[in-house]
Amino acid sequence: MAKLHLYTAGITAGFTILLTAAAAEDAALPKQAQEIFQPLPKDLASAELPIKRERVELGRSLFFDPRLTIDGNMSCSSCHQPAFYGTDACPRSIGVQQRPHLRNAPTVLNAGTLDIVHWRGDRDSLEDQVAKAVTSPITSGQPNEKAVIDRLSRVPGYVPLFAAAFPNKPQPMTVQNIADAISAYERTLLTPSPFDAYLAGDQNALSPAAHAGLAKFINTGCVACHNGVGVGGWTYQKFGVVEDYWNATGSDPIDKGRADVTKDPADLYVFRVASLRNVAMTPPYFHDGSVATLPEAVKVMERVQLGVALSDADTRDIVAFLESLTGELPANFAAAPVLPTGAVVPAK
Amino acid sequence: MAKLHLYTAGITAGFTILLTAAAAEDAALPKQAQEIFQPLPKDLASAELPIKRERVELGRSLFFDPRLTIDGNMSCSSCHQPAFYGTDACPRSIGVQQRPHLRNAPTVLNAGTLDIVHWRGDRDSLEDQVAKAVTSPITSGQPNEKAVIDRLSRVPGYVPLFAAAFPNKPQPMTVQNIADAISAYERTLLTPSPFDAYLAGDQNALSPAAHAGLAKFINTGCVACHNGVGVGGWTYQKFGVVEDYWNATGSDPIDKGRADVTKDPADLYVFRVASLRNVAMTPPYFHDGSVATLPEAVKVMERVQLGVALSDADTRDIVAFLESLTGELPANFAAAPVLPTGAVVPAK
Repeated sequence: MAKLHLYTAGITAGFTILLTAAAAEDAALPKQAQEIFQPLPKDLASAELPIKRERVELGRSLFFDPRLTIDGNMSCSSCHQPAFYGTDACPRSIGVQQRPHLRNAPTVLNAGTLDIVHWRGDRDSLEDQVAKAVTSPITSGQPNEKAVIDRLSRVPGYVPLFAAAFPNKPQPMTVQNIADAISAYERTLLTPSPFDAYLAGDQNALSPAAHAGLAKFINTGCVACHNGVGVGGWTYQKFGVVEDYWNATGSDPIDKGRADVTKDPADLYVFRVASLRNVAMTPPYFHDGSVATLPEAVKVMERVQLGVALSDADTRDIVAFLESLTGELPANFAAAPVLPTGAVVPAK
Repeated sequence: MAKLHLYTAGITAGFTILLTAAAAEDAALPKQAQEIFQPLPKDLASAELPIKRERVELGRSLFFDPRLTIDGNMSCSSCHQPAFYGTDACPRSIGVQQRPHLRNAPTVLNAGTLDIVHWRGDRDSLEDQVAKAVTSPITSGQPNEKAVIDRLSRVPGYVPLFAAAFPNKPQPMTVQNIADAISAYERTLLTPSPFDAYLAGDQNALSPAAHAGLAKFINTGCVACHNGVGVGGWTYQKFGVVEDYWNATGSDPIDKGRADVTKDPADLYVFRVASLRNVAMTPPYFHDGSVATLPEAVKVMERVQLGVALSDADTRDIVAFLESLTGELPANFAAAPVLPTGAVVPAK
């Protein structure tokens, strides 16, 4: 009995040392995380971009309205579906009249927090993105801005909505105002997550696995790119630092990335670093949607960007951390608005 | 002063007579309406079709899930959108891979109350409709039931949902069960309206115009077909009783209707009488979506079915009555569910 007691005491002493080291690390981790990441702001209102209720409501209706597009059967919400956390679960989206999009649809959730728009940064702002999308041959199929405005002006219920959202304007229904309204709506689509609660000081907001995963996410070097408020989304990076990405993912065709936009050879295979907010809800992964699951995507990243091979257990912890970046769907996104009635597509 | 008094008294007396007549009519109208129409039931649960929560929840997910279809980019909710009260605002819907549907998408709201499924009654039940839709070349594009099940079984989150919805079955994931689940969900999509409150005895539930419209709807003969719980939806009728419908609407091509299903010449141009619940929210109108607005649709009906020409004021009143058939969107339809993750469409 005495022997057993001594043995148990020895185990307890060993445990205490381990726990003390772990406690010291635990205490340091939140501080370290707060230096690398920022929590989501409460809202994105600013002096230049005030969040006006009427404008947001109009933008919400337009976001869900397929009458913006040539056949009247696709809306922003077709590729950015609430059911898939603002994505469409397709590797690459299918646009109007079966026209293929070249890249995977990124989520619109928290898009207002990101400094770079689109995978290749080929749009200046959310407003620029929307304005170009409404006459894009793939996204909309409408031949020009006039066709878009002609279509919408045949929905009587939109007239007062535009007037309320853009008061004191002689012609409130313009493509620029459509872009301003949809962007204003998108800026309201914020999804605070358990990780934001953790950054605000609530250590219990992360599970033990997520906590361990956060430490590994930092120590493995993922945070070199995935940092800031979006846990990514504001810098560019070559996809395939250590190893070619198309070998690792079987991606086909090879995408030259930002080089096609800037014509700078230094931008070959360079893309926006993806924001990892809600990443667990938005497979498939990468600009080409070539990878179906999150553990697989983490392993590709480790291999081609960092040249490391983490164990399955480490990868699971990192995935647990990434799952802590999932927030709740905003109510004004989960539910579609009831749209002003009006059938504007001629019978065929 | 005395003269004015007498004159006023005369007017008042005349008014009293009119008001008394109107009051008598007012008193008779609710009773008359109660004989012609029935309010929506509270729910559609029955011994044969119990409403099971797990089955309804599964059905709701499947209803919104585009992964049921060949390219993964269309779901039931593509043609039956919450934003358009369960329709798509298109004259005729566009199916998968741009394949045209032959007829206008009727709303799924209150569909569980209707005795006839589809415009031509070519489906035996909601279950039969869904089961055929999931392998229809236009609706789904999936080549066979196996392809549908293979696709869904690659979404891990569906396995427990099917098991919970269909307990004690060795293989819960079947097309029949998909059909049962989606039908169970659809049976929950009921939209009680101001007119139901009126039928339940609340005379103030209808505006004066709607009240007048109800009387005209009855007295003009619309109720010969549009009656019962759905204000239509349970009988067949020839479209074009008095005058050919394609002359009145410019419909092209001419649709032989139910005759193509039954091969009975008596069924030439025969269609399901449309339920008028939520009709104000679901333009365009008729099986071909050939008419864009509700007043126009009422006038076509008056002309080709009843051979009458009501005044604009009478038509406005009837439209006001029809607007009283609009209920609120059910919460489990307005908001899309968050779907189990899983990207199942191979990259192209």
